[in-house]
Amino acid sequence: MRILGIDPGTATTGYGIIDAVDGDLRVVAYGAILTPAGDPPEQRLQSIFHQTQGLIADYEPERAAVEQLFFGRNITTAIAVGQARGVLMLALAEAGIPMSEYSPPKVKEAVTGYGKADKAQMQLMVRHLLDLAETPQPDDAADALAVAITHARYVAFQEAVDAP
Amino acid sequence: MRILGIDPGTATTGYGIIDAVDGDLRVVAYGAILTPAGDPPEQRLQSIFHQTQGLIADYEPERAAVEQLFFGRNITTAIAVGQARGVLMLALAEAGIPMSEYSPPKVKEAVTGYGKADKAQMQLMVRHLLDLAETPQPDDAADALAVAITHARYVAFQEAVDAP
Repeated sequence: MRILGIDPGTATTGYGIIDAVDGDLRVVAYGAILTPAGDPPEQRLQSIFHQTQGLIADYEPERAAVEQLFFGRNITTAIAVGQARGVLMLALAEAGIPMSEYSPPKVKEAVTGYGKADKAQMQLMVRHLLDLAETPQPDDAADALAVAITHARYVAFQEAVDAP
Repeated sequence: MRILGIDPGTATTGYGIIDAVDGDLRVVAYGAILTPAGDPPEQRLQSIFHQTQGLIADYEPERAAVEQLFFGRNITTAIAVGQARGVLMLALAEAGIPMSEYSPPKVKEAVTGYGKADKAQMQLMVRHLLDLAETPQPDDAADALAVAITHARYVAFQEAVDAP
């Protein structure tokens, strides 16, 4: 199963694509969708939408996993991230790709076994689980890979529970 | 100039379309884009996007005016409204329709001359300015017409300032 993980933002939206086959995880691609801070908001949303459509066309993910907003952030940021999230979700829905949402503590729990893991621990585990020589850059891409891993693990868990 | 006013929400997004010609305002259409509360968020965003595209195709507005979020609301609501706003802005940008944003106090000021006008005063002025026999329903449609009127007045003011 090919999973597209997304960590939404306005300036930087991290993405990470992995293949999960029989509990084995393999990285396909990762990076960030960037939009220039000086552009008008509607133009940045358009760019996020088209870049997401491009990723979907290039890598043909079967599922998407999106990081839930961290509600502690300031409200102006939260609204701007909400707008970016809206167009990401639209691009996925238009392509018929089912999406799941995971909160930051759930992602930490699934990746490190500890819901309050710090950034360094998370990055180490992402490297380890995907057998990468270096920590993925930018940080948002590593976060997006972590969300994709989270989804793979939840699906594996669900299958184990459902097995006869 | 044909103006599409929008008051974004998730369950209900009000819209109002007016023609503004030489300071004269005429209502073209108004109503609400509705999405069922039981549907998954991505499906609701898709519905908002396609209904907005439908309005644009049917009425061919030249400009759009969108009500800015009222930041006092609770943060979960603000994020959901942000997502709806994102896909609305995308639909406008994809159609090449320039948009302006107005805060609730600016809308009140432009429509009634008083930045703290209450709902009843606003609805009365919208009826009066557009020569309507009844108050537009639902309330979100009346709010959207108010945003469209605000844009017409700002443009008229700007033209007066720019005139030789």
